[in-house]
Amino acid sequence: MLYPHLAVNEQHHLTIGGLDTLSIAREYGTPCYVLDENVIRSRCRVYREACAEAFGPKALPLFASKALCFTGMYKIIAEEGLGIDCVSGGELYTAEKAGFPSDHIYFHGNNKTDADLKQAVGMHVGTIVVDGFDELEALETICAAAGTRQRILLRIAPGIDPHTFRAVRTGSVDSKFGTAIQTGQALEIVRKALSLPHIDLAGCHCHIGSQIFETQPFRDAAAIMVAFLVQIRKDCGVTLSELNLGGGPGVPYTQDDPSIDYRSFVTELGVIVRSVCESENFPVPSVRIEPGRSIVADAGLTLYTVGGVKEIPGFKNYISVDGGMPDNPRYALYQSRYTALIADRADEPKTYTATLAGRCCESGDLIGENMPIQKARRGDILAVLCTGAYNYSMASHYNRLPNPPVVLVRDGKTRLGVRRETYADLTALDQEI
Amino acid sequence: MLYPHLAVNEQHHLTIGGLDTLSIAREYGTPCYVLDENVIRSRCRVYREACAEAFGPKALPLFASKALCFTGMYKIIAEEGLGIDCVSGGELYTAEKAGFPSDHIYFHGNNKTDADLKQAVGMHVGTIVVDGFDELEALETICAAAGTRQRILLRIAPGIDPHTFRAVRTGSVDSKFGTAIQTGQALEIVRKALSLPHIDLAGCHCHIGSQIFETQPFRDAAAIMVAFLVQIRKDCGVTLSELNLGGGPGVPYTQDDPSIDYRSFVTELGVIVRSVCESENFPVPSVRIEPGRSIVADAGLTLYTVGGVKEIPGFKNYISVDGGMPDNPRYALYQSRYTALIADRADEPKTYTATLAGRCCESGDLIGENMPIQKARRGDILAVLCTGAYNYSMASHYNRLPNPPVVLVRDGKTRLGVRRETYADLTALDQEI
Repeated sequence: MLYPHLAVNEQHHLTIGGLDTLSIAREYGTPCYVLDENVIRSRCRVYREACAEAFGPKALPLFASKALCFTGMYKIIAEEGLGIDCVSGGELYTAEKAGFPSDHIYFHGNNKTDADLKQAVGMHVGTIVVDGFDELEALETICAAAGTRQRILLRIAPGIDPHTFRAVRTGSVDSKFGTAIQTGQALEIVRKALSLPHIDLAGCHCHIGSQIFETQPFRDAAAIMVAFLVQIRKDCGVTLSELNLGGGPGVPYTQDDPSIDYRSFVTELGVIVRSVCESENFPVPSVRIEPGRSIVADAGLTLYTVGGVKEIPGFKNYISVDGGMPDNPRYALYQSRYTALIADRADEPKTYTATLAGRCCESGDLIGENMPIQKARRGDILAVLCTGAYNYSMASHYNRLPNPPVVLVRDGKTRLGVRRETYADLTALDQEI
Repeated sequence: MLYPHLAVNEQHHLTIGGLDTLSIAREYGTPCYVLDENVIRSRCRVYREACAEAFGPKALPLFASKALCFTGMYKIIAEEGLGIDCVSGGELYTAEKAGFPSDHIYFHGNNKTDADLKQAVGMHVGTIVVDGFDELEALETICAAAGTRQRILLRIAPGIDPHTFRAVRTGSVDSKFGTAIQTGQALEIVRKALSLPHIDLAGCHCHIGSQIFETQPFRDAAAIMVAFLVQIRKDCGVTLSELNLGGGPGVPYTQDDPSIDYRSFVTELGVIVRSVCESENFPVPSVRIEPGRSIVADAGLTLYTVGGVKEIPGFKNYISVDGGMPDNPRYALYQSRYTALIADRADEPKTYTATLAGRCCESGDLIGENMPIQKARRGDILAVLCTGAYNYSMASHYNRLPNPPVVLVRDGKTRLGVRRETYADLTALDQEI
């Protein structure tokens, strides 16, 4: 099995965290997201311990909650002692509802509205990661009116694009996020932030991408960012004390994908940060990292019921399931690859090849094409693995399909993180006309 | 102005249906979907009249409601005398809530669950468009248990792909939808349907694609489908009386797009259907068509507030708005092109070029790249045109952003079709853990 928390029981059924997925499907219906809570918690601990070792006790990993956001998720993260990265008023509201400690919240986003900024300031969010000049001015005005001073980081584009040839280091300069070192705008916004009376500039943030398996781009980014802190000290006479290196470590979705050791990844970051600091005689900053996908992706799977199998001679085989792009838009958006299996006969060899079709009236509504799988029939339970990240959080109501529930598995028991949406919920905002 | 219901008033503001978009933004907030109801109603009338002329009084255009579905929308469609094409239990539920006449409902989808089929049969849905063998058998079982007989069409793949070279006529054979004439499976499923005691086979359905501007692929499909009805008469001795030719007529999104005269399109379909019937001595069937996008797309626009402008020397200019892929995923999914303008200064020439960025923490969250637009600043109202179709209906909560409201404009007044989602709504399904 690709992931160690999944197995096959004596009835030949797929299990997650020791529980039979067919029993879960029977109890909660399909489609249904299932998360192994122990996997999430142990991944949190790996990051927390590795950060403490690599960067000292002040280091704090932040869960990038855009990967998976619901009230209970923030409670789990709080219990595991991580901070969170929020990207909207909706995420802030959810964190507040979960009682998440506001000083461990980092508020991100390339376009925070005035309402968002007021909400964050009103909640005493620990740190706002300011994206650009317009937002910096808006925040100064809001803090002045509130008579408060806000701790911020500035989002910086270090000019690294890990998804292109390394020689082409301009990709992320051309980004809607942050200000670039290369254009001189990053230093300019630092000067501006330092000049504002209600802004407390604590440091800088960068994020180079996601689903990255090589450590070199992260090491490059860390070196560039420390060098930028050194440049700020030289040009502005200020020693900033915090460095947020964002997220991005990859997760294997199929057997062909590489994997990454998250502990070594953090250790390597620690080595490069300390070594550049030492050579520049710069005090080692408090480091933040923002893993999201790598905390929740492989903890999750989605259970579907097979609706039918269509064999088109000379073309493809299609297996249709009772979900699709509304609960998992990642194939439609990015042609992301997944691993799937028939949960009823999980240890049968995958001798069949099929395209997994969702139930939306849209040709692009596929989970994957030409995937190895067991032969299926209407009524089978089909599991798509590694759906813990960017599935529930990206879900839509396309075709007016209700969002599936999120079921948490822990220590041999299930509980609901999010209940299934009903048709009445779906139409609750519709007005009488 | 690209669309005749949009104009610029004396204050230089964009108007829709005669109303100032800035007043609408002030009253309802942003982001906000706005629909000109008169445009929707008049487009319905064009289709209804053209169908009656081309195919006689029994012809019925059906609104493909996956393009835009909320309770009030079904009321408008019912008032205009069209039928509807529903694709899920959620759409059926919404139609029922709107009091839509069930005999004018066509229930579609490549993978209807048993629960969906029971719901449709229980609602006395006029026609179920059966997609394949598995579903046909499931429906027979359900109707037998209910002691009822269900009128159906069969979804057929005519083997036309209008989006590839016409010589390559296999595209839509390889589809998750329907059964193909070419493989012999279509005739096989007709035989099967005719043999089932609780199934009343009324005719056949096809759908060749969407956003099509040429009439030739539709004419080809019509000719192939009539020929298939003739073949059924020859091989099975049954004369089927209904032909549903699906949807697909295109809508111009930018000035570079072609346009299509919807009335002539229907007229041309009528000519080809009658001519093939005449040459084969086949009685002209009742014809259904299923326009969706072309009824609602250009009736709608989305109002956003500009959050900031980022000019990256040597690269791009970015204008950020307070929405993005959660309310309009079409650029992220299909790189669809749109027309945008600053509603505050709508008659200023578009001398600026900018990439419109949404507010999601995702690089791919763009509305369009390098678009001609007026120069913008934080606080401006920005309008993206032609968002009436596949925007609200595809909306997600990515980044926990609430769904915008749908505002209807008619005869100088506004009313809410769907109210704005609140943060409390967003977290309503979250459970205490």
